[in-house]
Formats: sequence, C-alpha cells, structure tokens
Amino acid sequence: MTSISRCVLVLGGARSGKSTFAENLVLSGDGSAHYIATGRAWDDEMKQRIALHRERRGDVWNIHEEPIDLTHVLQQLDQPDNVILVDCLTLWVTNLMLEEGADVEGAFSALVQHAAKARANIVFVSNEVGLGIVPDNRMAREFRDHVGRLHQQIASVASEVYFIAAGLPLKMKG
Amino acid sequence: MTSISRCVLVLGGARSGKSTFAENLVLSGDGSAHYIATGRAWDDEMKQRIALHRERRGDVWNIHEEPIDLTHVLQQLDQPDNVILVDCLTLWVTNLMLEEGADVEGAFSALVQHAAKARANIVFVSNEVGLGIVPDNRMAREFRDHVGRLHQQIASVASEVYFIAAGLPLKMKG
Amino acid sequence: MTSISRCVLVLGGARSGKSTFAENLVLSGDGSAHYIATGRAWDDEMKQRIALHRERRGDVWNIHEEPIDLTHVLQQLDQPDNVILVDCLTLWVTNLMLEEGADVEGAFSALVQHAAKARANIVFVSNEVGLGIVPDNRMAREFRDHVGRLHQQIASVASEVYFIAAGLPLKMKG
Repeated sequence: MTSISRCVLVLGGARSGKSTFAENLVLSGDGSAHYIATGRAWDDEMKQRIALHRERRGDVWNIHEEPIDLTHVLQQLDQPDNVILVDCLTLWVTNLMLEEGADVEGAFSALVQHAAKARANIVFVSNEVGLGIVPDNRMAREFRDHVGRLHQQIASVASEVYFIAAGLPLKMKG
Repeated sequence: MTSISRCVLVLGGARSGKSTFAENLVLSGDGSAHYIATGRAWDDEMKQRIALHRERRGDVWNIHEEPIDLTHVLQQLDQPDNVILVDCLTLWVTNLMLEEGADVEGAFSALVQHAAKARANIVFVSNEVGLGIVPDNRMAREFRDHVGRLHQQIASVASEVYFIAAGLPLKMKG
Repeated sequence: MTSISRCVLVLGGARSGKSTFAENLVLSGDGSAHYIATGRAWDDEMKQRIALHRERRGDVWNIHEEPIDLTHVLQQLDQPDNVILVDCLTLWVTNLMLEEGADVEGAFSALVQHAAKARANIVFVSNEVGLGIVPDNRMAREFRDHVGRLHQQIASVASEVYFIAAGLPLKMKG
C-alpha cells in the first residue's frame, strides 16, 4: 500500500505565527526534517532565522539555502521519508523577480507540477500580501499579482491549506 | 410559491481567485447570466477582462459596462430569472469618489436598498483592502473607510458572504 | 464554585465592524460595562468615538482614557463583575512606540500576564495590519511586527478569538 504524501500550504500575514505553525507541523510528523530557506543571506531576518535553526535545532533539521532553484532542491530531496519545510514562497518570488531574465511564471509551473506529484511531504509557508490598499509602486503590484497567482496554483494541488492569524490556524482545505 | 432570490457577497484580496469563484457561482445556477463591469474602459485590466468575457463567453454572458449608475442597471435587470455578477464594488467606489459632486454614501444606501429587495439573483465581487498598514495618503484612507462600510452594509442584507484566499472559499454567512 | 472570566480578542481590518461586534459582546453580558479608549485625544476619530459613547451610552458605559498605562487601568478595574472593552490595542502600540524610552515588549508582557489571570472579563479590539505589502517605511514595519507579536501573545491566553470581516465574525478560538 502506498501512503499519500502531504502537500501543505500555510498562509498568513507578517508575524502571524505561520512559520512556527509550519515548523510544528513538520516536527510532529515522522521522517527526516528538511528546512529550505529561500531568503538571500543578505536578508538579516532570514540570516537570523537560519542561524537559530542551525544552533538550536541542528540535530533535528537538515538546512538548505536556495534563493532561486527551489524546485531543483525539492527534486533532490524527493524521498517518501522526507518532510520539507519551504520558508517562504514570498521571498522566492522576490528573488525570481530580481533575477535578470528569469521566467517567473515558468518557474511557478515547474514548482506546482513537482508539488502535485512529489513523494516527499512538503510544507510551504507564504505571506498573504493582497489584503491592503493597491500599492502605488508598479513592482509591488506585480509582486502581489505573482504571489496571488502562485498561492492559487499551489492551493489547487495541496492536500491542506491553512490561514494563520494571531498564531491560530483556520483550515481552508483538507 | 415564491422562491427567494440570492444576494451574495464575494470578498477577497488581489489575485485571490474571487472573480473566478463568483463567475462559477453564477454559471452553476439557472437563469440568464449578466455581467456588470464597473471598471472604466481606461483600466487595462478591466478592458482585458471584458474582452475575455466577450470573446470566450459571449454566448453565455450578457455584458454591461457601468462605472457609476450601478443601481440603475441592476433595477433594469431586476427579473427573477436573471443572475447578475457585479465585478467589482471596489472599482465602483473608486469611480464614485472621483466623480465630481457624487454622493458616495447616498449611492451606497440606494444600492443596499435595492439589493435587500431585488428579485434577480446578484453576486457582488469586492476587494478586501483594510488589512494592511494605515495608508499615508488621505484619499486612500477615505477609500478604505468607504469600502469597509459598504461591505458591512451589503453583508447585512446578503444571503451568503464568502471570503476567498488562494482560490478557496470560506463561508462567513449563509 | 468560581466562574472563569472571559478574555476575548476581536481582530479585524479598518471599518470591518470589529468595534461594534465587541461592544455588543460586552453589552450582551452581565456586569458593569467599562470602556478604555487608548487613542490620544488629538485623534479625531477616537475623540468622536468617545464623545459618541459619552452622549449616547453614558448611562451604560464607564469611560476611561489611557494611552499608555493600559495594564494599570485594567488592574484597577479587576473585579469579577466588570466587563471591560479595550479599544484598541493598535493605538496603544502606536502610543508606546512614540513614547520616549518606553519598553514596548516589556509592556506587552505585563499586559499578557495580567490578561492571563484577570478576574474581570476583558474584550480587546485590535486591527489586523499584516496582510498587505511590506511597507517601505521602517517604523511601519516595526509597528506591524510589534502588533503581530502582541496578537499572538494575547491570543495564546484568550478564551475566545474572533476575526471580523464585513461585520461578520469568524471564530478562530474558543
């Protein structure tokens, strides 16, 4: 009998507790815990978060840093006994948009196709950014359009989707 | 026996999938499907959306464009076998605010009074815009205050209210 | 037998109807209704809101104004037959951040410790501000980080948490 792997999307606002919720999801399950940090090393908050993972939980987490080729790293880790936390999709979209010549929508399709058939369990963390006033800045508008489209695509193949506010989960799917 | 007409409010962020959800709601029901586009023709995205409706679904949708006198168009279409999609309230509020001498709150009251007693089924789509940082810009603050008040009023007379995130509906009422 | 006091957090966007929902929660219960306004008198909207409370409901509400020492006022009112509305936490955070030398996180801890063991019933109203685009402004980013952390802390000790949109409550906890 083949067990079905989980593909989870955890959405939430800034400081909503979404990463902590996602980390607990991963650590509450069986399997090897992998952490893919998509933030560039020059992002202080991400540096701090990775350092915190390294120091406190180095014995539990296998840590990977990948700002662009997220799907490639997921493919390399695609074993049924792996549980992979991707933190976070919004930083990955930012990196893609800043990468010269990157095919943003093409990268989304590749990720979604992988997520739909992955054998590893994957927990994606992402920021909901589309619930404020339309930004003046064109780049910010494109960013939130990209992020919104990616969320819809990942949610359509995910087995579970959670919306986190004030540290509390609201199950949207699953 | 008189059947009760549905009045539905579909809220969501940018690229949340709210319009697609609302379109499916309309097309899954019986009756003639009407689409009221409130965006000005100079809004590229709306032009594209209307063109897409015209080309792909011209045989299914009756398309109307009305940036200001939304309630008047709804009154003209107020037959029990009509299902009307209004896309979207936020653009309508924007147009009212830019219209010299317009009575924004008066227009809201007229719309809500019509919605409360309409014989046609109506599905309103609108952007939730009040969940970010308070905008610096006074016009933007007034806009989000207007939109928030309109949502409360429409929700109070609606038979169903949905909040959409990542393409997934959360039923708030109904 | 000791009855357990309620600690409620009511979150929502601008003009979401969160204050009205919270006021109804307080007035639907037994006990003396207290209203703590955290907004500075120079905030026109708060002035208006307090005046409205004073004029229309002066016979029902006991009104207190406290921009900074919120926990102190809550301690003074900590009787089991009191029901206290705090409107709102976001203005309190703003005031703390503008107060020279204030220990913002220390003030949060003191409030949360009080809330966890209070004998009075307390209903906190607060704005969800973290669901838009990352603000350009450093102060705004710090503000939304503070607010997000405070919401998580209050939610962890609250007996009930509601998220309000379009005047409709969504129960997140309780």
